Amino acid sequence: MAVYTDITDDEAEAFLGHYDLGSVLALKGIAEGVENSNYFLLTDTGQFILTLYEKRVDEADLPFFIGLMDALADRGIPCPRPVRAKDGQALRTLAGRPACIISFLEGMSPRRIRPHQCEEVGGALAKLHQAGIGLDLYRGNALSVGSWRAMFDSVGAKADTVQSGLSDAIKQELDYLEREWPHDLPVGIIHGDLFPDNVFFHDEHLTGLIDFYFACVDALAYDLSVCLNAWCFEADGSFNVTNAKLLLSRYREVRHPNEAELQALPILARGSALRFLLTRLYDWVNQQPDALVRPKDPLEFLRRLRFHQHAKGPESYGLV
Amino acid sequence: MAVYTDITDDEAEAFLGHYDLGSVLALKGIAEGVENSNYFLLTDTGQFILTLYEKRVDEADLPFFIGLMDALADRGIPCPRPVRAKDGQALRTLAGRPACIISFLEGMSPRRIRPHQCEEVGGALAKLHQAGIGLDLYRGNALSVGSWRAMFDSVGAKADTVQSGLSDAIKQELDYLEREWPHDLPVGIIHGDLFPDNVFFHDEHLTGLIDFYFACVDALAYDLSVCLNAWCFEADGSFNVTNAKLLLSRYREVRHPNEAELQALPILARGSALRFLLTRLYDWVNQQPDALVRPKDPLEFLRRLRFHQHAKGPESYGLV
Repeated sequence: MAVYTDITDDEAEAFLGHYDLGSVLALKGIAEGVENSNYFLLTDTGQFILTLYEKRVDEADLPFFIGLMDALADRGIPCPRPVRAKDGQALRTLAGRPACIISFLEGMSPRRIRPHQCEEVGGALAKLHQAGIGLDLYRGNALSVGSWRAMFDSVGAKADTVQSGLSDAIKQELDYLEREWPHDLPVGIIHGDLFPDNVFFHDEHLTGLIDFYFACVDALAYDLSVCLNAWCFEADGSFNVTNAKLLLSRYREVRHPNEAELQALPILARGSALRFLLTRLYDWVNQQPDALVRPKDPLEFLRRLRFHQHAKGPESYGLV
Repeated sequence: MAVYTDITDDEAEAFLGHYDLGSVLALKGIAEGVENSNYFLLTDTGQFILTLYEKRVDEADLPFFIGLMDALADRGIPCPRPVRAKDGQALRTLAGRPACIISFLEGMSPRRIRPHQCEEVGGALAKLHQAGIGLDLYRGNALSVGSWRAMFDSVGAKADTVQSGLSDAIKQELDYLEREWPHDLPVGIIHGDLFPDNVFFHDEHLTGLIDFYFACVDALAYDLSVCLNAWCFEADGSFNVTNAKLLLSRYREVRHPNEAELQALPILARGSALRFLLTRLYDWVNQQPDALVRPKDPLEFLRRLRFHQHAKGPESYGLV
């Protein structure tokens, strides 16, 4: 949760002048999104989210993110749609930062995950993967196996201040993943960060997928492995195989992963667990005393990694 | 700006079940209010603010605050109206805290203060004071002259770590204020904290007064002195006599302060400057490294205090 940039009333009015949305009735910083500043925007014509892109987002990637949301919304994915200004542009500048208005999605992120929600997430992810087919949009995965060692090196010995032996555990895992990582799986547009925070439900139904700022082109099954890490572990660290089975089964009803993708689930899940372990570890050892964001516990993902290290194949995730 | 308490979707749905507001379409923590957690709440029937009262607010005061907003809204003051649940109660419990749903007010807080806004604030304050007449509601001012020395003592020598000599300057001012503070001015319900953050405007007109959690019964002219400190100083610390004159003049058109109230403006303004200096100083020296709130600079109010120490009377604030 973060609001970094203060927007004055004058700036907001001037900015809205570029759009056909009427005048600003309210603009309130909201605790949503970690990388960017997000505001609830109410105008004469409706409700919107205004996003200001802070420095952790590469400006060069913004046309990809905006083009992707636009295309996915066109193809029926319940994601925010970028709002175009009178000049046709969706990406502008506000308070010195790149800024975009997107549509407001109803729904709430679940805190206590229920099995049927995992089922809906599996289905929504498969539809997202299918909707991404044929889009003329490309962004590489900046947080995949090729970048993990550099991230680990930047943390260095500080890892052991979080937990003794953590540094060695990561190093061994990195050696394994760099050697064994599959490079021949079907690729496409992935969300890359489909945690419960980024999924809205209303009346038991999935109503929104948000935060496409880690989206990229990578192995589709890697996105599934992210969801296994994001949706199928209990607060105490135990694996909920019912949730995993429902998520994967519903996914398979919509899109049919091949045998190689299914067999790769354990190593992909090890990789995605390490990816979140590393980014959280980086944030943990680099936290600013005056930051408005509390870093999340990296060790949650060490425990998930341990689980996947013992997984045999898709059967460990409830698939038959 | 603060969001302290995390509300789960289950808790929110169960809580809303007590109301006739339909189901929750969205609930987003917003960066508004310093003492409490505030959420933008969207339901089938409209937009609301959900407030959770955190530990800095005394629970025993909540019936006063809620009764006051209710009564003021009845009397036409553009303030939030507490929403009653099916059982008639506006104050409930959510996530272990006292909680209240209030109506959503449109408008934005000004950042660059314009003269006409000071005029509108003066008029709105006078109407607020008049609307408070005859209300059977009482809460003493917990942050007036009787409590300043104890607050200062709790900060103690740490004051000088903020600025050398600050401790002596405060002590001298306290001695003066305790000796000379007027106790025979007309009293009534005051807002007590009517800073720009707590006032909304839309299309150049005042649309809302919020955050009544410092409201109490005290000298009405003290509330005016708070507004002088809150609305009539430039970012560089200089006094904007035009804004002060407009604020006071419009106030006088609606409610007529007596001569004693006008003559007391300098000492009241010294007192309210010291009140905000002390509370900011307290927050500054007691800041938690992991807090989500950045404390505000106490020294802004030392500079304002210096101005008021040299004021002769109402003429120093532009009144003739």
